Amino acid sequence: MRRMGILEQYHSFLPVTPNTPRLSLHEGNTPLVHLERLSETWGVELYAKMEGFNPTGSFKDRGMVMAVAKAVEAGSRTVICASTGNTSASAAAYAARLGIRAVVVVPDGRIALGKLSQAVVYGAEVLAIEGNFDQALTIVRRIAAESSEVTLVNSVNPYRIEGQKTAAFEVCEQLGGPPDVLAIPVGNAGNITAYWKGFREYFDSGRIGALPQMHGFQAEGAAAIVRGEPIAEPETVATAIRIGNPASWKTAVEAAKESGGAIDAVSDEEILEAYRDLTRMEGLFVEPASAASLAGVKKARQQGRIAAGTKVVAVLTGNGLKDPSTAMEAVPVKPVRLPNDWEAVEEAIRKPRGASHASV
Amino acid sequence: MRRMGILEQYHSFLPVTPNTPRLSLHEGNTPLVHLERLSETWGVELYAKMEGFNPTGSFKDRGMVMAVAKAVEAGSRTVICASTGNTSASAAAYAARLGIRAVVVVPDGRIALGKLSQAVVYGAEVLAIEGNFDQALTIVRRIAAESSEVTLVNSVNPYRIEGQKTAAFEVCEQLGGPPDVLAIPVGNAGNITAYWKGFREYFDSGRIGALPQMHGFQAEGAAAIVRGEPIAEPETVATAIRIGNPASWKTAVEAAKESGGAIDAVSDEEILEAYRDLTRMEGLFVEPASAASLAGVKKARQQGRIAAGTKVVAVLTGNGLKDPSTAMEAVPVKPVRLPNDWEAVEEAIRKPRGASHASV
Repeated sequence: MRRMGILEQYHSFLPVTPNTPRLSLHEGNTPLVHLERLSETWGVELYAKMEGFNPTGSFKDRGMVMAVAKAVEAGSRTVICASTGNTSASAAAYAARLGIRAVVVVPDGRIALGKLSQAVVYGAEVLAIEGNFDQALTIVRRIAAESSEVTLVNSVNPYRIEGQKTAAFEVCEQLGGPPDVLAIPVGNAGNITAYWKGFREYFDSGRIGALPQMHGFQAEGAAAIVRGEPIAEPETVATAIRIGNPASWKTAVEAAKESGGAIDAVSDEEILEAYRDLTRMEGLFVEPASAASLAGVKKARQQGRIAAGTKVVAVLTGNGLKDPSTAMEAVPVKPVRLPNDWEAVEEAIRKPRGASHASV
Repeated sequence: MRRMGILEQYHSFLPVTPNTPRLSLHEGNTPLVHLERLSETWGVELYAKMEGFNPTGSFKDRGMVMAVAKAVEAGSRTVICASTGNTSASAAAYAARLGIRAVVVVPDGRIALGKLSQAVVYGAEVLAIEGNFDQALTIVRRIAAESSEVTLVNSVNPYRIEGQKTAAFEVCEQLGGPPDVLAIPVGNAGNITAYWKGFREYFDSGRIGALPQMHGFQAEGAAAIVRGEPIAEPETVATAIRIGNPASWKTAVEAAKESGGAIDAVSDEEILEAYRDLTRMEGLFVEPASAASLAGVKKARQQGRIAAGTKVVAVLTGNGLKDPSTAMEAVPVKPVRLPNDWEAVEEAIRKPRGASHASV
């Protein structure tokens, strides 16, 4: 019943020492939800790993709790990153929990500050430099390299992958073994790397007797790995995976290859269709980027690359409430206007379902 | 490890029959987080029951899963409500999960449609009538009364309280017994009613040996119970408890009286201060209304109505991501502008913490 954080739950698989702070916002232990109606429709045994149930609403919390705890263990009093999205939100929350500082460095005038609101709510300090994103990243790397009291928590921090791999452990426990296929969105490619590491460690320790195929899915407008070259100006509705040159490119390709899986691309249209299928057929609301894994499962089934009856876990990386504007564009509110008369309302209800969202 | 829904977990305490659908979006089993720094600051042993971790981001899911399951068991194929907030979002999600219809009736032109976006994403149909909110409620009540296929899931639905009481069961299990004090926001007053029912049932069954004091907190601008009369135009930043004539008024007063607790009011300023304390000192982000319980604990401690060392559970009813606009008003993003120069950034970081949010 009691939810523990991942550092306590999986300490034997993590670089946790007696000096590591027992940091937790009750990350991990996210639900694995059976998608009954989509399973039937697509002809697979489909489950969703709901990572949006983590404390700040995304899978990033698993890696961040490890990275921030190790930072403090090493004597750091400030964590720093050059992210405007889920990474900065997560870093700020764990820093707040331990009473240390979180600093976010961003390019001045090039990003919507609203994207930073979650990090700022948790108390992060925002420094806007006269430069672009790459220059912001260069600066935070240099500062962290030169100061023992400032730790970089961008994806180059190796503890991030360690924490994130715990999601693979949970999937195996929740399912009573590994799935046949793990379907996952690919942005910076750290998460597919982390799941594969987790599955292999559970396999090597004898906890599971087989390994899943890893199927990663990039958005078409940001499909650097699929195309085989970096993309200078990536574009996709799935902002959380809008990355043109993934940091963990090599290890992601290895995960797909070693597992007999693949990395493929899905279009924005396919992503939004899966996004709507999920909310309207299963009652689950996720970040658009999360739906890339589901769109990929659907496509791979249609192409025969995933066989009928396959046991598939799709990783849904973030909470839908993170991106209300995309939700409203994908499914605009179109009320049916009626007089103040119960009979008019009753008649409207008697009409066959679907009339009010025929245009969706 | 496996998270079950509340119908399965607590079926012996709920009106679950062999014919009740096994409906679940993995609601319940929400974290109980120890607030270490606020405990120390306020001189209590303080825990937060994080109800924003429920599937649609609020405690409403506990009652709604029960209400929707019983509706379908009784032959209904449509659920209807006259809410624009958390209730409609939750109703829409569970209706989607079972493949039935959710209809939301609202006053035309009087509410921001953005508030309905979550319900619409889950596939709810919106009917806007030429009338006010009370007239919308009158219409949905009449329609549900006249049709066996349409079920009202507004708070008058008695199954809502049944489902919601399961949060009290969880608190007792997570804490290894009841707290001394349960602090809770009071809007429509159904939740304080439900918790008290839950605690009493666990007491009567012998699962706990004592009962907590129930401390409910209304927002000052909507404190009908505290003032002793309905408020025609309630106003508060805590929109989820902006209710001028609570449906469960009587049972809320009974809960406070029978338990030796009280219902008190907190100002918007106190609510926002607690909201910021929680994010910045504990790394937890909730709906503004949720912070009313914490603001209440702080006030009651200062007034000596909660003694030092008391074991307090504060119910935090909803996810902060539900209300990003209040977050941004409460904690505006104010970046510090700097040249593209790592030394300038390093110098800014060396400055004592707090400079960048001195005005908050």
